[in-house]
Amino acid sequence: MQLSSATIDLNADLGESFGRWQLGDDDAMLRLVTSASIACGFHAGDPTVLRSATERAVEHGVVIGAHVGYRDLSGFGRRFIDVDPAELTNDVIYQIAALDGFARIAGDRVRYVKPHGALYNVTVHHDGQAAAVVDAVHRYDPSLPILGLPSSRLLDIAAERGLAAVGEACTDRAYTAAGSLVPRDQSRAVISDVTEVTERSVRFATKGSVIAVDGTVVPVSPRSLCVHGDTPDAVVIAGAVRDALSAAGVTVCAFAR
Amino acid sequence: MQLSSATIDLNADLGESFGRWQLGDDDAMLRLVTSASIACGFHAGDPTVLRSATERAVEHGVVIGAHVGYRDLSGFGRRFIDVDPAELTNDVIYQIAALDGFARIAGDRVRYVKPHGALYNVTVHHDGQAAAVVDAVHRYDPSLPILGLPSSRLLDIAAERGLAAVGEACTDRAYTAAGSLVPRDQSRAVISDVTEVTERSVRFATKGSVIAVDGTVVPVSPRSLCVHGDTPDAVVIAGAVRDALSAAGVTVCAFAR
Amino acid sequence: MQLSSATIDLNADLGESFGRWQLGDDDAMLRLVTSASIACGFHAGDPTVLRSATERAVEHGVVIGAHVGYRDLSGFGRRFIDVDPAELTNDVIYQIAALDGFARIAGDRVRYVKPHGALYNVTVHHDGQAAAVVDAVHRYDPSLPILGLPSSRLLDIAAERGLAAVGEACTDRAYTAAGSLVPRDQSRAVISDVTEVTERSVRFATKGSVIAVDGTVVPVSPRSLCVHGDTPDAVVIAGAVRDALSAAGVTVCAFAR
Amino acid sequence: MQLSSATIDLNADLGESFGRWQLGDDDAMLRLVTSASIACGFHAGDPTVLRSATERAVEHGVVIGAHVGYRDLSGFGRRFIDVDPAELTNDVIYQIAALDGFARIAGDRVRYVKPHGALYNVTVHHDGQAAAVVDAVHRYDPSLPILGLPSSRLLDIAAERGLAAVGEACTDRAYTAAGSLVPRDQSRAVISDVTEVTERSVRFATKGSVIAVDGTVVPVSPRSLCVHGDTPDAVVIAGAVRDALSAAGVTVCAFAR
Repeated sequence: MQLSSATIDLNADLGESFGRWQLGDDDAMLRLVTSASIACGFHAGDPTVLRSATERAVEHGVVIGAHVGYRDLSGFGRRFIDVDPAELTNDVIYQIAALDGFARIAGDRVRYVKPHGALYNVTVHHDGQAAAVVDAVHRYDPSLPILGLPSSRLLDIAAERGLAAVGEACTDRAYTAAGSLVPRDQSRAVISDVTEVTERSVRFATKGSVIAVDGTVVPVSPRSLCVHGDTPDAVVIAGAVRDALSAAGVTVCAFAR
Repeated sequence: MQLSSATIDLNADLGESFGRWQLGDDDAMLRLVTSASIACGFHAGDPTVLRSATERAVEHGVVIGAHVGYRDLSGFGRRFIDVDPAELTNDVIYQIAALDGFARIAGDRVRYVKPHGALYNVTVHHDGQAAAVVDAVHRYDPSLPILGLPSSRLLDIAAERGLAAVGEACTDRAYTAAGSLVPRDQSRAVISDVTEVTERSVRFATKGSVIAVDGTVVPVSPRSLCVHGDTPDAVVIAGAVRDALSAAGVTVCAFAR
Repeated sequence: MQLSSATIDLNADLGESFGRWQLGDDDAMLRLVTSASIACGFHAGDPTVLRSATERAVEHGVVIGAHVGYRDLSGFGRRFIDVDPAELTNDVIYQIAALDGFARIAGDRVRYVKPHGALYNVTVHHDGQAAAVVDAVHRYDPSLPILGLPSSRLLDIAAERGLAAVGEACTDRAYTAAGSLVPRDQSRAVISDVTEVTERSVRFATKGSVIAVDGTVVPVSPRSLCVHGDTPDAVVIAGAVRDALSAAGVTVCAFAR
Repeated sequence: MQLSSATIDLNADLGESFGRWQLGDDDAMLRLVTSASIACGFHAGDPTVLRSATERAVEHGVVIGAHVGYRDLSGFGRRFIDVDPAELTNDVIYQIAALDGFARIAGDRVRYVKPHGALYNVTVHHDGQAAAVVDAVHRYDPSLPILGLPSSRLLDIAAERGLAAVGEACTDRAYTAAGSLVPRDQSRAVISDVTEVTERSVRFATKGSVIAVDGTVVPVSPRSLCVHGDTPDAVVIAGAVRDALSAAGVTVCAFAR
């Protein structure tokens, strides 16, 4: 195999514990990823979790992103809430600013913003909420990139507003021939086989494509790959992806600097 | 009466609405005070309230302070919570940072920190929690002054740590001969007569003293006077205090700049 | 004017304070209405509010209903949340049971269930969430009536499941020719003129109809009239409605006993 | 070894998950204990957790108790909150009633009340809060026993008010010569050796005593033994305790029926 000269970022959702409740192994994941999307307290993450996650990210040289979500601890931000866009903008500013405080005392700062859960899915197509998230980032710091799904309303509006719009691919999700994710409620939506996940990761990085559920090759050219942090085997999968990328000659490094 | 050359700040607690629930008349108060201690979301104040309060404070040229409290919406931050100091430090950093985000997009920044409610009362004597608040301010921005009760552990520790410790007086609270506040559960603790409140305010500013409940004159030399913002007649009282200070030749201006 | 032999219930939303935040004048409203839809803690109402509201309702001989809503204090239950129906059923059971505990120690019990805010509006047409609310009532106590909008999916499913489905009319909302409410974001949606509100109330009770925005007479035959409790002039309007009904010979009494 | 004719209850804290966050293995614990102290939503446990925990408890023939705590999800109820006793009474009524709703639809009902975490520790000595909890149980259902630490103010006041006051022993906590628990912040406070835990359990049940940290034998005669449900080896320890009690001829059965 010819070694690639490709470069890609590896991001994971971290800081998702809350009080007594632990979720994920942030320390282990921080040894594997180059960008950490850290929860900001609305769907997960209390201030002590934010403090610890930002400090450890800095120790590991991992870039800090604000993983902003709906105000919904009991739903973990996974349920659509029909928040008025003007209020949503303020909810997002609040979250970015709070995390940024911890990032700064840790010696760095928030370097990108990514919506979490239902807010991620909804802003793919919901103009009002997508614009609300973009407006929050634009008001807080227009130099911050937004990380999201390629061709989503979120990234399109971000680009229109002059923000850096960064597309990511999901390493463990099936794609349709149209390049969108197979919805979670369908069988085959989630790919659990480690080898398949790593092969797809390498293809994303080196060929800029993915094999859709119907077998067609679909162009998807992400600057970041998302690996999940909250499943029991998250660390194993992320490690395998990282190793496979290295073996293929892909340089893994953060997109935001 | 000889006009005074004294200078004093006038501060009030603002941003205490939450969602559907309105509390206080922020707009009217912002025409009267020089410093606004704005709630940060833990005991009151949602992100939209913070956005509005900071923007209006900037419009009125009023200095923004972070009014940090316990995480206790149902108790409005008025109940002591035995939070571990390390966690309390993080809770306070989170609140300052979130408000600072809104202050910055409004064109200013957080310029002081004041504890709210039970946290204010407890840090008068509780070493661990007082040090926790000081540590938060020190980590977030050691140039930020802390506003509190003179001779409190909070201000003493702040001064020891090299922070600016700014004492305030309460215009509508009775004082003991020892210079402390008469506890709220005692009769005569709160002064509701407007004339008495204004006379005491002028005395604080011009003579640096207060007449205690036993009639003795007690030296209290605050750099700021606190007027309450959440009572029905708050605006009337604040206006009367401001007028009386002006009539006495006292310059009312913010302590933080 | 010929006196009517009609009978109708008058209901209002009560118990909507939370902690330090007061909303509405429950005592005054309880002198005017025959049914109190009391918030259960998810969108408004803390346990002390529930205790007080249930005790006073019993003192005034007012029937207690559970006003169940989404878990959303910051949004006051007015934002749709895409809660999984199975979880929504449990959220509703929790709220009914909690309020029922206070109703019982006050010497009565919860006698009906009414969805609040966005849950009220959404269950007009959303099968899954309407069935979830019905399922909660059915599991908790199948003898409890559900109060809602006539012809809503909520009431239709309730009737199919063998529950008592009770229709109400809104005294201060404009109706379309199709018998549905004019959406709040349209002008003329809310009727603020007291005389118009009272005339409409009497027409609902005595003629079973309403004059729609286009002038047509639409049949609407409610067993209960809803007056709002959280506006500044709520008590005045409710008093005027009650007086007008009495003057028209309408017997005002609770539908649930 | 002579077989005992003793009888004892085995209780554990269950229902401590919340939304996305799992804690403990309720199913496994329900096969081992005879009483389940189920969280009620204030410090842990969402409505869906309560629904599941009560249904499974009934399936396993395990008695349901209400594990009531402070309103403090982020602190898991482990931090003292200086709640006004009148409000605390209402907070406790709310929690008991909510859980009782689920217990009843599962075919049983709440059969005892036990304070959780800081509320458990504080009501050992805090008259006001102890009386507040007792008052809540007394108002909700005076036939409900309260489970707590022997000689605590909670149980003493419960007994004075005519309630059944049931003492429990902690199987994995060290005792002082005075019969109180060694505080958690001291070394040796928690016993992690399984054999030692089981031996102490058998001694509690058969001899009504415990060997204190100074070696003295202290009489402690509990009607229930508490095993913890939220540690990684909770199921192993509970199983070992149950086996050891059976081997010693102790009948393990619920105290409340």
